[in-house]
Formats: sequence, structure tokens, C-alpha cells
Amino acid sequence: MIGRLNHVAIAVADLGKATQTYAGTLGAKVSKPHIVAEHGVTVVFVELPNTKIELLEPYGDSSPIAGFVEKNPAGGIHHLCYEVEDIFAARDRLKAEGARVLGDGEPKIGAHGKPVLFLHPKDFCGALIELEQA
Amino acid sequence: MIGRLNHVAIAVADLGKATQTYAGTLGAKVSKPHIVAEHGVTVVFVELPNTKIELLEPYGDSSPIAGFVEKNPAGGIHHLCYEVEDIFAARDRLKAEGARVLGDGEPKIGAHGKPVLFLHPKDFCGALIELEQA
Repeated sequence: MIGRLNHVAIAVADLGKATQTYAGTLGAKVSKPHIVAEHGVTVVFVELPNTKIELLEPYGDSSPIAGFVEKNPAGGIHHLCYEVEDIFAARDRLKAEGARVLGDGEPKIGAHGKPVLFLHPKDFCGALIELEQA
Repeated sequence: MIGRLNHVAIAVADLGKATQTYAGTLGAKVSKPHIVAEHGVTVVFVELPNTKIELLEPYGDSSPIAGFVEKNPAGGIHHLCYEVEDIFAARDRLKAEGARVLGDGEPKIGAHGKPVLFLHPKDFCGALIELEQA
């Protein structure tokens, strides 16, 4: 079912410093920061040859990553995003397997403009998983 | 400097259950378990089209991931591995930038038989980073 690893998301308190770490210290190609107001994040894309790292900083008053950054002031890996061909077929399969889909179980439009679901870390080896319809 | 994301390592207490999650629930292609005694882990490779997930279970009495699994009984993302062309050039660049290389700073032979270094999470957005000479 799962296809490519679309990205690894790393949440940080200071996006400028994180960008300098990836662009300067690690010598990776990085984008400019993009505000994604409706998802409560500012994001910098680190472009690797085979996938992306997304550096996320909380944006606005009700960012969904604010609590994570408060608990992890040095930052941390927030989630992994796997691509799927059909988000509804994926959702139905996961529910049939007894896995917990977060929220109301209905796909939402994610930060890339494509339908996504988030899966409960406790059911997926302690890692928050995003599924994105490719 | 950094190239491909070689793998994401997820450490778990129960490799059989984790394998079932990836092979069964998520429908990914997985390998048989491999014991890597000298690195204190048993590993199952999850083969995605563009990279790998490595599911790691502690092996033996002094596994380097035993403490992590004790602190994270549901499992968790343990590290990210980026490829570099020249591990010594990478090491020298990182030291010149003031980043902390773990251990004595000399590359060791990693679980894939290639030279690796580990970098301090506090200097890399809270994520433990492995660099592997490709």
C-alpha cells in the first residue's frame, strides 16, 4: 500500500537556525521559508536527491506543532509522510486492520494541497505517520 | 554535502509486531530479520521505492538502542541516515562548523559495512543523524 517516503518533518523553535544547520553545516539545498497559515506552520524544504526534509516552525496562535516544540525545545522529528495512491482505500484498509486514524477519519487537504490522513503513533511503532495521496 | 536519505531508523521493543505493522497494516515490502550482533540490533528492512525504513530491535546485553526502547516502549524514530561522498571531508567540515561528532570523531564501520559517523542531536534540530559514506 505505502509508496514513496514523501518527506520527514522536523519541528523546530527557530527556523532560521535550523535552515542554517541544513544549508550551512550539512550543505544541503534549501528553499525559502513558506508560511502555510491554514496549517499553522512556516516551512523550509530541504531538497535531497531522493526525498525531502521539511523543517517546520509554529506559525500563529494555534499551531498544531506548538505543543511539540514546547516539549522539545531543541526540535525533533515530528512525523513521516508516506505516499498512497488512493487515500480512501488506505483509510478503509487501516480501519479494517484496527489501526487508529486521527481526527474524524476523513481525509483533509494537507500542506501540499493533496488529501492527507494522520495515523496514531501508538499503532505505528511510536511514529506519527501522515499518508498523502500522491 | 549531504546526499540521499539512506534510511530512517525506527527502534522498537517487538520486531515481529513492528514487521506486521509495516508488512500487514501498511502493505510494504519487508525483508527477513537480520541479526547484526556487532551493532547490537536485529533489523528488518522496509523497502520503499525511494528509500528504506529500518526497524531495529535491541540484540544482546549491551545494545546501543536498549535505553531508547526502554524510554519509548511503543517505539520511536531513532535516527536519520544521510549519505555523503567522503566521510573524512564531512567530519572535518562538521568540526570546523563547531558541530559535535559523537564518540572519538573517527568513522566506524556501520551496519551496512560502510564508514559512518553519528552527530549530536542537539546540534541537528533534535534529531540523531548518521552520516554514511555511500
